[in-house]
Amino acid sequence: MKVYLTRRYLFSASHRLHNPALAEAANRATYGKCNQPYGHGHNYFLEVTLGGPIADETGMLCDLGALDSLVAREILERFDHQNLNLLPEFRTLVPTTENLTLRVHQILSRLRLPAQLESVRVEETSNNSFEYAGAQAPRR
Amino acid sequence: MKVYLTRRYLFSASHRLHNPALAEAANRATYGKCNQPYGHGHNYFLEVTLGGPIADETGMLCDLGALDSLVAREILERFDHQNLNLLPEFRTLVPTTENLTLRVHQILSRLRLPAQLESVRVEETSNNSFEYAGAQAPRR
Amino acid sequence: MKVYLTRRYLFSASHRLHNPALAEAANRATYGKCNQPYGHGHNYFLEVTLGGPIADETGMLCDLGALDSLVAREILERFDHQNLNLLPEFRTLVPTTENLTLRVHQILSRLRLPAQLESVRVEETSNNSFEYAGAQAPRR
Amino acid sequence: MKVYLTRRYLFSASHRLHNPALAEAANRATYGKCNQPYGHGHNYFLEVTLGGPIADETGMLCDLGALDSLVAREILERFDHQNLNLLPEFRTLVPTTENLTLRVHQILSRLRLPAQLESVRVEETSNNSFEYAGAQAPRR
Amino acid sequence: MKVYLTRRYLFSASHRLHNPALAEAANRATYGKCNQPYGHGHNYFLEVTLGGPIADETGMLCDLGALDSLVAREILERFDHQNLNLLPEFRTLVPTTENLTLRVHQILSRLRLPAQLESVRVEETSNNSFEYAGAQAPRR
Amino acid sequence: MKVYLTRRYLFSASHRLHNPALAEAANRATYGKCNQPYGHGHNYFLEVTLGGPIADETGMLCDLGALDSLVAREILERFDHQNLNLLPEFRTLVPTTENLTLRVHQILSRLRLPAQLESVRVEETSNNSFEYAGAQAPRR
Repeated sequence: MKVYLTRRYLFSASHRLHNPALAEAANRATYGKCNQPYGHGHNYFLEVTLGGPIADETGMLCDLGALDSLVAREILERFDHQNLNLLPEFRTLVPTTENLTLRVHQILSRLRLPAQLESVRVEETSNNSFEYAGAQAPRR
Repeated sequence: MKVYLTRRYLFSASHRLHNPALAEAANRATYGKCNQPYGHGHNYFLEVTLGGPIADETGMLCDLGALDSLVAREILERFDHQNLNLLPEFRTLVPTTENLTLRVHQILSRLRLPAQLESVRVEETSNNSFEYAGAQAPRR
Repeated sequence: MKVYLTRRYLFSASHRLHNPALAEAANRATYGKCNQPYGHGHNYFLEVTLGGPIADETGMLCDLGALDSLVAREILERFDHQNLNLLPEFRTLVPTTENLTLRVHQILSRLRLPAQLESVRVEETSNNSFEYAGAQAPRR
Repeated sequence: MKVYLTRRYLFSASHRLHNPALAEAANRATYGKCNQPYGHGHNYFLEVTLGGPIADETGMLCDLGALDSLVAREILERFDHQNLNLLPEFRTLVPTTENLTLRVHQILSRLRLPAQLESVRVEETSNNSFEYAGAQAPRR
Repeated sequence: MKVYLTRRYLFSASHRLHNPALAEAANRATYGKCNQPYGHGHNYFLEVTLGGPIADETGMLCDLGALDSLVAREILERFDHQNLNLLPEFRTLVPTTENLTLRVHQILSRLRLPAQLESVRVEETSNNSFEYAGAQAPRR
Repeated sequence: MKVYLTRRYLFSASHRLHNPALAEAANRATYGKCNQPYGHGHNYFLEVTLGGPIADETGMLCDLGALDSLVAREILERFDHQNLNLLPEFRTLVPTTENLTLRVHQILSRLRLPAQLESVRVEETSNNSFEYAGAQAPRR
């Protein structure tokens, strides 16, 4: 028996899409206006999905407060109100939302979360979202 | 060939998270403010997903009106504007949203629905939702 | 010159609509399923609108953190995860969302807010909201 | 390694649910008010999900602009501000949202999309959506 | 003392923007793709705002059920799942959303509503809405 | 007779809240994490409200395409995917959302819009918005 919890968080950050290994023209062709030299920003919604059985004693999948504390400390404090390009997580990686989704998944999958990590979804805008579920086929 | 329909419903209910088998202190530690003695409440959004082939004659997966009638009679009338703790469905079960999701799935899976039940999702707030898809791995 | 800030907060509470001065039948006729004896609940979204000039030095209407602290202490801690019927604010008042809106306005209008209180809006569900702007004609 | 992109588009169209092979009474019984002789309409939200690895050089799953151009030319120009019943795509098919979802999937799956098509979801209203993922079990 | 209630309803309809008094070219220039000969459609959200004092006995502005019945009978049954161009309300009026808003206001203002009509707002899409508040300056 | 149109637009930008006339400590105290040296960003939703009579011939308040072109050219091209701190509009003004709202209003009020400008609203996040309606009391 497996139930899934999806929890939604918000953070705001800026980024510039630019790969120093590419020529200026290739950068502009690849990233368009996201390549503007001084960056732009987004409100990112992050959805974390955990799965597992319901504990008999509590009737809960897991302690939501524990999940919130871990996400606050490891994700929100790291990325909220930051310029992504300047963070160690993106020293060698273009801070696209694809890579941001991957990084969030990587960070979370190394923690002792209160239930199993199923997938990570990041909404860049209401019309654009990315999801990563690790090696296994994602559940949603 | 399989197409999936997701239909969204709303109901409002109150609950108190409390397990009489646990000590007061354990209840408070487990459920936090959700353990307040006189309960609180939510607008719950319920999403029911059915799946199956499109019928040639109608171009539809199933009769939506038939689904709506069953959900109204079996779910909304049972839970809407109720105190969940006092319902027979939660006599021996803490009315967490995990257990509510399970109960809705149980009730629906015993009915003759107009197409196959794929999963049940309940949003407790816009930042918090639970999903259950029965024994098989869920589709979404 | 006047600019308006609207800030949105969430709290969850339960209530039962019942006026002890009315007969049972009148209560049922007036409140319908909201008169169920053991209550039900909602996720209430609260919108607080403040107005005033932009301060030259800061470029801001007011200190948002100061507003958030006051709303957290005076409104959210009072009403979140509570049964409204049991609170002193509703000892002599039926906890309809109309009266809840009024009470929130009353509480906020007695505080030293960081800018002028313009109006208070409470959403009971996404299809149902109430607004109160005090004696003067409301701005929005 | 597979990441999923979901991109959201909007189009407005009208339709009438009516199968000329059925008697009038059967049409009315099957489609209810959707069988009104002169049609009605919807704002349809379309979600297209693509999947695949992140390209090392760009940090992206694919060129979003390329996807947008294809969807604009092949889907939005075809269906936006149209009466679905009069389009060649629905000459022999009742324009239910199930069939619309199928048609969109069919059209997209014949194109050279910038990444693999995973699924197509169409929201008819905020309470009603359909999804199709082709022969394979859908990811979401 | 005046409190405002805003209540939200949904209906789906089709329309074609075309003024028979104008030449074809002028119609096309004025209405663009909304002038397509066979129409298109929308999910229209209607918001009705009523205002007045809170009744002491009930704690309510008015009987919501009474409002819902009137709106269902006079607005939703008239416009839902219809082709607006064919209705008597638009015999001599182009069914733009501006005129639809006006017509809804006209119809409602002739009824004995349970509180004073303040304004009518119609959302054609989530990016486009119209509001009418009669002769007096609108409240919101 | 006056009807109001509200039209919604989206742009993404980054900013840093910092007043060079204030000491570092005062900047940090005033702007908190919004004062981080390298900025952060938002998806800004802009709502522009125009008002006026419905034109008899067209049944419309104004030409929406004309409004969209003006907003695209004068607002979106100026602010979308930009670092607000580096724009001429904020050379002497801290790019708070209050000041951004004011600037948008200023720019629009100097244009020949297709109807009268009533107000400008900017959403910084879904919980935080600002509105400015010029010298006259705002309508909404």
